[in-house]
Amino acid sequence: MSERRELANAIRFLTVDVVQKANSGHPGTAMGMADIAEVLWNDFLRHNPANPKWLNRDRFVQSNGHGSMLTYSLLHLAGYGLTVQDLKDHRKLHSKTPGHPEYGITAGVETTTGPLGQGFATAVGMALAERKLAQDFNRDGFPVVDHFTYVFVGDGCLMEGVAQEAASLAGTLKLNKLIAVYDDNKISIDGETPGWFADDSAARFRALGWNVIADVDGHDAEAIAAAFTAARRSEDKPTMICCKTIIGYGSPNKQGKEEVHGAPLGVDEVARTREHLGWTHEAFVVPETVMRAWDARPRGERVEAEWNALFATYRTHYPELAAELERRSAGKLPDGIDAVVAGEVTRILSATPVREPIRKASNRVLGNLLKSVPEVIGGSADVSLSTLAWTGAARSITPDDFSGNFLHYGVREFGMSAMMNGMAAHGGLIPYGACYLVFSDYSRNAVRLAALMGLKAIFLYTHDSIGVGEDGPTHQPCEQLVALRAIPNMSLWRPGSELEALVAWEHALKRQGPSVVVAARQDGGVFAHSAGDLDGMRKGGYVLKDSVGKPDVVLVATGSELGLILAAATTLEAQGKAVRLVSIPNGNLFAREGRDYQDSVLAFGTPMVFVEAASPLYWYQFLKGPGTVVGVDRFGESAPGPEIYRLMELTAERIVSEAEQLLR
Amino acid sequence: MSERRELANAIRFLTVDVVQKANSGHPGTAMGMADIAEVLWNDFLRHNPANPKWLNRDRFVQSNGHGSMLTYSLLHLAGYGLTVQDLKDHRKLHSKTPGHPEYGITAGVETTTGPLGQGFATAVGMALAERKLAQDFNRDGFPVVDHFTYVFVGDGCLMEGVAQEAASLAGTLKLNKLIAVYDDNKISIDGETPGWFADDSAARFRALGWNVIADVDGHDAEAIAAAFTAARRSEDKPTMICCKTIIGYGSPNKQGKEEVHGAPLGVDEVARTREHLGWTHEAFVVPETVMRAWDARPRGERVEAEWNALFATYRTHYPELAAELERRSAGKLPDGIDAVVAGEVTRILSATPVREPIRKASNRVLGNLLKSVPEVIGGSADVSLSTLAWTGAARSITPDDFSGNFLHYGVREFGMSAMMNGMAAHGGLIPYGACYLVFSDYSRNAVRLAALMGLKAIFLYTHDSIGVGEDGPTHQPCEQLVALRAIPNMSLWRPGSELEALVAWEHALKRQGPSVVVAARQDGGVFAHSAGDLDGMRKGGYVLKDSVGKPDVVLVATGSELGLILAAATTLEAQGKAVRLVSIPNGNLFAREGRDYQDSVLAFGTPMVFVEAASPLYWYQFLKGPGTVVGVDRFGESAPGPEIYRLMELTAERIVSEAEQLLR
Repeated sequence: MSERRELANAIRFLTVDVVQKANSGHPGTAMGMADIAEVLWNDFLRHNPANPKWLNRDRFVQSNGHGSMLTYSLLHLAGYGLTVQDLKDHRKLHSKTPGHPEYGITAGVETTTGPLGQGFATAVGMALAERKLAQDFNRDGFPVVDHFTYVFVGDGCLMEGVAQEAASLAGTLKLNKLIAVYDDNKISIDGETPGWFADDSAARFRALGWNVIADVDGHDAEAIAAAFTAARRSEDKPTMICCKTIIGYGSPNKQGKEEVHGAPLGVDEVARTREHLGWTHEAFVVPETVMRAWDARPRGERVEAEWNALFATYRTHYPELAAELERRSAGKLPDGIDAVVAGEVTRILSATPVREPIRKASNRVLGNLLKSVPEVIGGSADVSLSTLAWTGAARSITPDDFSGNFLHYGVREFGMSAMMNGMAAHGGLIPYGACYLVFSDYSRNAVRLAALMGLKAIFLYTHDSIGVGEDGPTHQPCEQLVALRAIPNMSLWRPGSELEALVAWEHALKRQGPSVVVAARQDGGVFAHSAGDLDGMRKGGYVLKDSVGKPDVVLVATGSELGLILAAATTLEAQGKAVRLVSIPNGNLFAREGRDYQDSVLAFGTPMVFVEAASPLYWYQFLKGPGTVVGVDRFGESAPGPEIYRLMELTAERIVSEAEQLLR
Repeated sequence: MSERRELANAIRFLTVDVVQKANSGHPGTAMGMADIAEVLWNDFLRHNPANPKWLNRDRFVQSNGHGSMLTYSLLHLAGYGLTVQDLKDHRKLHSKTPGHPEYGITAGVETTTGPLGQGFATAVGMALAERKLAQDFNRDGFPVVDHFTYVFVGDGCLMEGVAQEAASLAGTLKLNKLIAVYDDNKISIDGETPGWFADDSAARFRALGWNVIADVDGHDAEAIAAAFTAARRSEDKPTMICCKTIIGYGSPNKQGKEEVHGAPLGVDEVARTREHLGWTHEAFVVPETVMRAWDARPRGERVEAEWNALFATYRTHYPELAAELERRSAGKLPDGIDAVVAGEVTRILSATPVREPIRKASNRVLGNLLKSVPEVIGGSADVSLSTLAWTGAARSITPDDFSGNFLHYGVREFGMSAMMNGMAAHGGLIPYGACYLVFSDYSRNAVRLAALMGLKAIFLYTHDSIGVGEDGPTHQPCEQLVALRAIPNMSLWRPGSELEALVAWEHALKRQGPSVVVAARQDGGVFAHSAGDLDGMRKGGYVLKDSVGKPDVVLVATGSELGLILAAATTLEAQGKAVRLVSIPNGNLFAREGRDYQDSVLAFGTPMVFVEAASPLYWYQFLKGPGTVVGVDRFGESAPGPEIYRLMELTAERIVSEAEQLLR
């Protein structure tokens, strides 16, 4: 047995023993990719286990995250402080080795993977971030940002559409420092893949502008090393290394079969595998010599020290750049941000309110903020001008010039969102990306992963309701607002004025977690804010206009429907009713406020009408007395937006009538 | 000017004049693809405008649906009864020519398109349906099901991941009667595509197993005709015809530019285009000679008559097959279905209830129903055995044998769902397809389109909550139930017993519209139903177990949480409380019931606890008095399912405690 094979077998037996002990898990992938991982981690990967957050480390992502024991074994062996006990606790509550790799739980895990295809797309985002930061910060002789992104993918990842979207853009953008390894084992859960996956993957990736290294024997260390060496030399293309592997390699009776994918081998087969691979050690025991060979800490200390020396000299030459890179990498916003926000507040409060599309107000404040936050990288899934994601501060990134700050993602909402996650997880950049609200559906699981990981990624959605008008029901969202707000750890803004839009973007830039900003294509209402509104706005909901004395009725709205409740209030007040108007631009934040604050705004028990051009479901949680929700619970129509508002009875008259009924 | 070009120009001028009149719309695509469409419709397409539902018609889908004026012009010219006035009403309320093609609104529109990529994937489903029905019904000399599916796609469609998923499976399944035409005009909304879309699309589709006809001049009728002729000869591969076109062809100042994509040309440019193309006719006027040349009715009558003759002879030889094909095409279930359901009811009511996973109970009733409903075609996105979509009645469809009834879709949730829509829209088949509930996120917009179109497609989702356990938060849905229920026209079942599962599947098979069946991996509760439960079950919610006398508290649950309220009730009853237990397996149906029925079940005003292992948001709508919702509003953990239930306090003890607080 070669020494390399022995090193790889350490992964295999940690995996089979852990999965056997947990009596649950996925041994096949780790056994199949062990040789590849061994070569990558021992010969190529530049990282420092003592500092998993070193900014210039190579990124490693295992997109086929169900095979997480591969990652955990690597982190254990390389010296990331993951203990044997941690491994034994695989898939147990609050362990460092959950079923799938989880960002923030385990040092060395760069992103949460498990939802297939997305780890790959996220890795593309990381490579994109590296290219962008390298362009902005590197100077002659000072490649301070200069690392590779490696990603392992399985058949499942390549079948998922999101991988196609990301691969296509990676090829277009010539991300040559992205190196993917395809674990071509021809097995997925349903069995042998040729019955449902007959792609010529090598040819496919070539067609996407990739450097493809095909037909590599994934169990031949020399061939694998040669492939990585060649991949790292690619000058203008990302590389896909297609490795033929045997799933569950080493298990005499189960290798190459689906049964080794997602279940323990069984005690007997574990023993036979030991015999077959000549691994004589007890369960969980890796011999000292093997552990030493794996230990990446000395090498890691050295490579980081080299980089630190480089960076120190860089700092003497480019002190501002060095400070800026450090600031960004630490996730700190520029000191001046609060002053900029304050300036915007003053500008808005002193201007005469005008009727304008909310997306336009949002675009203006965003553009003004961005001048002071250079780490923000915008983008849009092909609708830059209709989403108005394109601000006055925007400059396009092109395949040959990454000095801009705006990505044309093409018609790829899901890929965009997963790539945004990759940039946010990489660090040094704050991504925002836009599409029409209804097509948030396409990207929903990536938005979810941003929330799960707590990544600072900002999703801008316009065309937010039946207000879209003529394009019809396929383009008119209805259930998307409640669906997005329902994602745990989400913060969804639907501003109805320029000031609300400002607060939304400010909060989104500051929040350690994702935000959704919904900026309607239709007009907001015309009303003058006072500085006093800001505090409540930042809590997600506030009294926009109070009644004199105790309100008879409370009208609540968001976004473009603020104009409707303003109009309804005029009518009701003419009837002598005391009307309180409430705006809840961020129901997620408002819901997290205490009951007292909510009561101070909503006056629970007072008859209440909620108004939003969307599924009413979200608002019932705040309805603790008589009241109703005026919303949209059917599909829209193709007609001018105002006509559909009337058709759906989303009108001031309807609100008045609902209020009157409640007051009867 | 050649005569063909004149025919194509009729499309161009109907389009530019309509868009100019509507002052909104997308002229570029119709102008660019007019020559291709002219050749296809006049030389190849077998259809009968007098009978748009003729079962053996060729299917035509315009996946780049924003260019809907192409489809509308074709339908007008071919004789589908779409009048000039209908065209003039483009994008007006309740017109037959909405902004995007809408299924059910316009005769001849085979599916709703607009959400990019999905029209293509839906067309793959249609071709799949054709292949399946051909295999089942055709006999030597009687190709009664024998048609092509043509689909037009733009750059946007090809960028979307869903197209990749469908294309890959179409290649694998050798759907040679699928013919796609790629409108390669190198323009998308952000401008010239090479900056974000540099794929070699021809090579890509070859890699996916397609017959690719590359570099066709999309404005050369002869070249186009030759391409279609060659495509129709493909024996074992779907065909992609890559046509180089000029967007907005004929507009001297705007063709080839983005500005012609989504806005009227302007009065002056319309005039210049007339001049440039030598079209001397007034707006909306197509000369009689041109109309006659386009009229597809005589040819349509002939081809359908030929087929009718063939079918008449087929009927004499194979009366049962003929009757069966007619029954299925009419969307009628077999007569015996009610007896089968009744038999299942009897079987279930007479059996002793056992503790078992709900997905297993669902699998059993589904398998038993399917024996009598041969038009059902099942499938799963690679997790056939863990979703238990694979029933005792299942047989795999393979690339070379479509006699089975189960599709292995691979890891392609979105593609699967869009293909299911295509099969449902084609007719003759009822598709169901499965994946884990959390990955419904991937396919969400296709589920939405099924609801918008009212298609009978059934989405089976398992692994429905934190109960998934060790795989962790990426695999544990939380917000998906409310998000799916919020889709208009959706019918979501989350059964908690075998009888509820039976009712769910029965309803799903009978409903003209999509259904979601959520079948938990975890166990249901153990309780005996009575036949009296059925009626309320079919209304979506019912009293599972009532108190003697007026209830002090109402406990409501769905699915696997029925077991929890049963246990809580035991404790509360021991304390002398009168407890009513309510099951709401289908909140969508229950919400559509009148307030009286809802009140008869929920006893509004009584303290109430709703329990579901999911986002609580859905249930507040039914909370019209004191009460609370015990749910899950944060991400899960990786640990055994029961531990996470305890961690999240989703326990009988918690329910008891909440009830006690309400009763205090």
